Amino acid sequence: MLKRVHHINFVVYELDAAVKKYQTLFGLNNCEFLDHPHRRVLTARFKVGESWIVLLQPLDNESPPGKHLQQHGEGFFLISYEVEDLSAAMISIESNGGAVQDEQAREGILNWQVADLAPESTFGTRIQLVEEKK
Amino acid sequence: MLKRVHHINFVVYELDAAVKKYQTLFGLNNCEFLDHPHRRVLTARFKVGESWIVLLQPLDNESPPGKHLQQHGEGFFLISYEVEDLSAAMISIESNGGAVQDEQAREGILNWQVADLAPESTFGTRIQLVEEKK
Repeated sequence: MLKRVHHINFVVYELDAAVKKYQTLFGLNNCEFLDHPHRRVLTARFKVGESWIVLLQPLDNESPPGKHLQQHGEGFFLISYEVEDLSAAMISIESNGGAVQDEQAREGILNWQVADLAPESTFGTRIQLVEEKK
Repeated sequence: MLKRVHHINFVVYELDAAVKKYQTLFGLNNCEFLDHPHRRVLTARFKVGESWIVLLQPLDNESPPGKHLQQHGEGFFLISYEVEDLSAAMISIESNGGAVQDEQAREGILNWQVADLAPESTFGTRIQLVEEKK
């Protein structure tokens, strides 16, 4: 069902500083800054192999990434696995005893359609599924 | 410098239960259990795309994964990026203002040679570099 590690989100206090550090340490020059107003975050992404590393700076403490930053500080926020068919994957997971937090797929950045599993059902890790819409 | 997301480690309390859950929810049938006595952990890995998802059950609270589990509970432990030449990458990172925690590369599972960056220098995320030895 899982095609690849599509992206991994890390929350940071200051996006510009984090981007500069990633660029300096790892020579990553393929950075894109992206808007994601629904989620109230500033974002930047780098491609590493077939996966995106996505850095998020929350704009308030109300959004899930903002709450996470307030409670846990900077670091890992979620891992998102690509699936072929998000609706089918959500149904399959629910029918196998999993818990999908989002009742319906929601809009990620760009053309990413996403749904999060309930972290209490996945060993403390926020796991997301994503389908790239054509 | 970074070729791919080589593996991501998640710490769990009970490896068998976590493996069963991953298999049930995501249909991952390619699980391998591996020994890693140096690190005092039980491990299992699944391949997703070009990356390994590695689950760790610490055997005590003294090892870095064991301390992490005790302090933070289950969840993300580290992300490991593959590099072509680990020694050269460590030198490059130090010379660009980064901090490599391991003075020398250490043995990971299988033929993985690894070195961790200091998490306080990387926005709260434990980042590792890995080279697969031939």
